[in-house]
Amino acid sequence: MIPDVIANPAALRRRLHEIRQPNSSVGLVPTMGALHSGHAVLLETARRENDVVVASIFVNPLQFDRKDDLEAYPRTMQQDLQICADHGVDLVFAPSAADLYPQEQLTFVDSPFLSRHLCGEFRPGHFRGVATVVLKLFNIVQPDRAYFGEKDAQQLAIIRRMVADLNAPTRIVAVPTVREPDGLALSSRNKLLSAAQRGIAPVLSRALRGAIQSIESGTRSADLIEQSAIAVLASYPEIRVEYFKVADPGTLEPIRQIAGPALIAAAIWLGTTRLIDNICWLPAGERN
Amino acid sequence: MIPDVIANPAALRRRLHEIRQPNSSVGLVPTMGALHSGHAVLLETARRENDVVVASIFVNPLQFDRKDDLEAYPRTMQQDLQICADHGVDLVFAPSAADLYPQEQLTFVDSPFLSRHLCGEFRPGHFRGVATVVLKLFNIVQPDRAYFGEKDAQQLAIIRRMVADLNAPTRIVAVPTVREPDGLALSSRNKLLSAAQRGIAPVLSRALRGAIQSIESGTRSADLIEQSAIAVLASYPEIRVEYFKVADPGTLEPIRQIAGPALIAAAIWLGTTRLIDNICWLPAGERN
Repeated sequence: MIPDVIANPAALRRRLHEIRQPNSSVGLVPTMGALHSGHAVLLETARRENDVVVASIFVNPLQFDRKDDLEAYPRTMQQDLQICADHGVDLVFAPSAADLYPQEQLTFVDSPFLSRHLCGEFRPGHFRGVATVVLKLFNIVQPDRAYFGEKDAQQLAIIRRMVADLNAPTRIVAVPTVREPDGLALSSRNKLLSAAQRGIAPVLSRALRGAIQSIESGTRSADLIEQSAIAVLASYPEIRVEYFKVADPGTLEPIRQIAGPALIAAAIWLGTTRLIDNICWLPAGERN
Repeated sequence: MIPDVIANPAALRRRLHEIRQPNSSVGLVPTMGALHSGHAVLLETARRENDVVVASIFVNPLQFDRKDDLEAYPRTMQQDLQICADHGVDLVFAPSAADLYPQEQLTFVDSPFLSRHLCGEFRPGHFRGVATVVLKLFNIVQPDRAYFGEKDAQQLAIIRRMVADLNAPTRIVAVPTVREPDGLALSSRNKLLSAAQRGIAPVLSRALRGAIQSIESGTRSADLIEQSAIAVLASYPEIRVEYFKVADPGTLEPIRQIAGPALIAAAIWLGTTRLIDNICWLPAGERN
């Protein structure tokens, strides 16, 4: 059954007030729609862990640094609602921009230190827009748990820290990246790739796995790992490498010498489509 | 009876979870302690309007731009607890800095546009610190209503806008400034004035009332109003005027020609003590 779709924040709050029992738990899966199997795993995890599951679908203009990117972002509402239905979502919150931003936004949630590295260096204002809309969604839904994919590693680190720093009463649950059989991380933006670009795209995850193998074989110089990976990626004329970096998983600061947990994160362009991916390396003693 | 004093955010949350009945309302009065009759009116209003009243007492280091000011800020915890007891406060939340900031604060709530005028121009980072700690308190206490004095006009405007912009589920209640018989607005900082400074201090509220009279007599030029007031204040060698401004009550932008509601706000220094005050002028048609 297609879940109820609510656009108005006050109406959603009223509805949740009706549904919510004392001690019942609410899980929120915030999305920008164009749902794929990676989102499906978020929805399944939320369904398993909560009494009430809310999915939000909102292409948030505040986090787009380029107007053409906002316009090109895929929108597939009818399919999205079917996927929500298939995974037992109770309520879909699908506001318009005017529902979430009825007046000029003058208040922002900002993580200047965590936002200056990796994607943040190339997308000014992006993570401020992400953190601001996520806090708005948390305040509207008041979820016990919220589900985010590990594919957006910097987003996840910023939101985890936001919840701790602002004492938000929501537990953040990270869900591992889902990949195509050839290794490509699932992303709504994959829809924008041509067949030729789609054929090349898995080189990004291969470069990340190559970096892991290099660390496993004893390489500890981040420079060496980054340069090797960039050389591989740059050998494809269709690819423009935005960054390929080894960073501290908590602070996102660059690491020069690998001595503990390391986030290896990258962004590449294939034509006008930007793809990101990452992988985390843990020393043998720190793995579960 | 002295109310229970809780320092740990998680302990406060557990305690509120025990006390709170379904549909019972919680009112929060956030303070920095050194309570006076102005705070008492906040507490009384909260007591009248809510089932549970929480007062927080926390001298927030994040909002102090000067270390000497943070150190000099008056602290009178035992008296504060008695005042809370006298006004029927149920719980006092009095965290240490380590309770509220257990690790380096990397996430901030910021209103860059509302913070650049009036006090914000002279206290860089102050309102970012205020908005951040208030949102933290809101997330910890989850109050239905929170009470703020009109004396801190810019703070009130920034918090009102924060609640709207971030969809915080808390209603902001503004409480009029309480004054001494000679007009001086009550402030914890009044304790820091020498007898001679205390004698001069009421000139600030007189200058504000003078500005209102001038508008009532037909003056519409903000320049003229500001210059007259600054001339009066500057005639006291003990006073240094930081600013005296006519501003839009919502955006806090300077007004040049008065045509509607006008916030008249000022900050002066008496020795090392900074005093602020304000008054709002409404056209006859917009008064209740």
